[in-house]
Amino acid sequence: MTRTGLGEFGRIARFFAPLAGPGGLGLTDDAALVECAPGHRLVVTVDQAIENIHFLPDDPPDLVAKKLLRRNLSDLAAMGARPLHYLLTTALPADRGDDWVEAFAAGLAEDQAEFGIDLIGGDSASTNGPVSLTITAIGEVAEGAEIRRNGAKAGDRVWVSGTIGDAFLGLKVLRGGYANLAADERAALARRFRLPEPRIELGRRLPRIAHAMCDVSDGLLADLGHICDASGTGATVRLPSLPLSSAARRAAGDDPDLPARLATVGDDYELLFAAPPDASGAIGRLAAELGLAITAIGTMEKGAGVRLVDAGGKRVPVVTAGYRHF
Amino acid sequence: MTRTGLGEFGRIARFFAPLAGPGGLGLTDDAALVECAPGHRLVVTVDQAIENIHFLPDDPPDLVAKKLLRRNLSDLAAMGARPLHYLLTTALPADRGDDWVEAFAAGLAEDQAEFGIDLIGGDSASTNGPVSLTITAIGEVAEGAEIRRNGAKAGDRVWVSGTIGDAFLGLKVLRGGYANLAADERAALARRFRLPEPRIELGRRLPRIAHAMCDVSDGLLADLGHICDASGTGATVRLPSLPLSSAARRAAGDDPDLPARLATVGDDYELLFAAPPDASGAIGRLAAELGLAITAIGTMEKGAGVRLVDAGGKRVPVVTAGYRHF
Repeated sequence: MTRTGLGEFGRIARFFAPLAGPGGLGLTDDAALVECAPGHRLVVTVDQAIENIHFLPDDPPDLVAKKLLRRNLSDLAAMGARPLHYLLTTALPADRGDDWVEAFAAGLAEDQAEFGIDLIGGDSASTNGPVSLTITAIGEVAEGAEIRRNGAKAGDRVWVSGTIGDAFLGLKVLRGGYANLAADERAALARRFRLPEPRIELGRRLPRIAHAMCDVSDGLLADLGHICDASGTGATVRLPSLPLSSAARRAAGDDPDLPARLATVGDDYELLFAAPPDASGAIGRLAAELGLAITAIGTMEKGAGVRLVDAGGKRVPVVTAGYRHF
Repeated sequence: MTRTGLGEFGRIARFFAPLAGPGGLGLTDDAALVECAPGHRLVVTVDQAIENIHFLPDDPPDLVAKKLLRRNLSDLAAMGARPLHYLLTTALPADRGDDWVEAFAAGLAEDQAEFGIDLIGGDSASTNGPVSLTITAIGEVAEGAEIRRNGAKAGDRVWVSGTIGDAFLGLKVLRGGYANLAADERAALARRFRLPEPRIELGRRLPRIAHAMCDVSDGLLADLGHICDASGTGATVRLPSLPLSSAARRAAGDDPDLPARLATVGDDYELLFAAPPDASGAIGRLAAELGLAITAIGTMEKGAGVRLVDAGGKRVPVVTAGYRHF
């Protein structure tokens, strides 16, 4: 409890109760009630954000809130689910004042409106350590429409939405790197690190198209490896097909090894999926309709493991096997 | 990530994957799938345990796990719900070795068997601060059978299960207090602090009996105040009716102010509920069947706020208005 200011109950009443939906029972009951539509299953995921690991002490609190929420929404998108609700826990040191909490809650409020979800429960505590936050997100998916990681088949094409590696470059920019890039490119990269775009609409349109899917959080090659492990397949990714933003291409101009490295870095929260070759037309139409690039980057194969190859089909060595926060 | 030992993925595979139920999809997908039985709602709650706030660094890891899980199960019990699944997040400093995680997971495994639940998802991270844990618990309740806090009516009797104040006394014992009590009494009190008993079976039997319910986590008077606030009623609690264990009675022998203080302390995880006077027979039969004391301690009234009174009906002053962890 902060010794001055609103205190725990005051903060809940002032900042969090206004975010509560009907299932949250005003955040005053012991637990929340969640309706489940007939013929549907609920989809549940949880992620945490720890100060100094996932974000820095002076990061804008509204963006800390949004990124944590969006990482969870990306997990729901990767299952083909529609987001409904979330629960929040906060553990805050005494020196985080009401203004920090107010800005944090304002970020949540904006994203609730953006994604059509509401807060239904949570828990707050103090800590003598770093700020520690978790969000549990709940979505729904029609029975049998969920897209798991284990359905890829040899011969499927591998697709990824958006562009890859921008979040990693954005973190470098925030640390003072890539000073030679234009201001708008630097800003675009930083934004991709701080404010991922969960591909919810794309995810919801992919049942009956994608055989297997996950989001790019550990790094494209590592995440594709998870699909391969779960599906009992291998995969080859063509490095020249990797979708890079114009800023990333410019950064790669001085650093020819960069594209291969970007295939190993995480935090992009794009959707990565396997689909049969005859789905390519439907995927192309979906990309046009959503105004979102969806790029074929490789092929699922018999065997195991993920290979990155160059334009000539020659294997490109990869140093890191996936991104870690720590 | 611990620099030596199993590492994050190794720990998940070795200690946590064996705890996973079918909805957890082997803990390898982006999110879990939860079935909801027709005519039922899901009930969801989340609680956290922060080192140095909720537990101490050298507390047995299996008991840390069980207490966090049971605090969540108590929230489900307080809604009248049957527990089904849970999700877990861990943020661990590098000096917490695999042995700590193994013992922690062993505690979860024992309680999964005890309460018939399974793990369906989670997230692990490192931290440079204290151990930080959250559990999200999911249960189910038949539509309309949920017991909320807002249904109490003037004239209802106030009931509480088990005994009150033992967890508070148990914490004192663990800190070296109450050395004059017998060893078995001291052990019983310490156990009540470390290993609460969620009253799940009682909670599930109280729909159509209880008008309003919560668990005793903030302190009996504070929690009854939450029921009063939500229901638009007041309440009077008779101090001599407060159910105290034999150990608490002995402790109160040297300290006549203790019983009133025990009405304000938390962490008991008993069920506190309001029921109409004509339910007393059914409640008595339920107590006998479950082998669990259920004690009438007061009355819901018109008005607002909670009064504690002595045997003569005279108001007893109360110092603390509820327990805080901080």
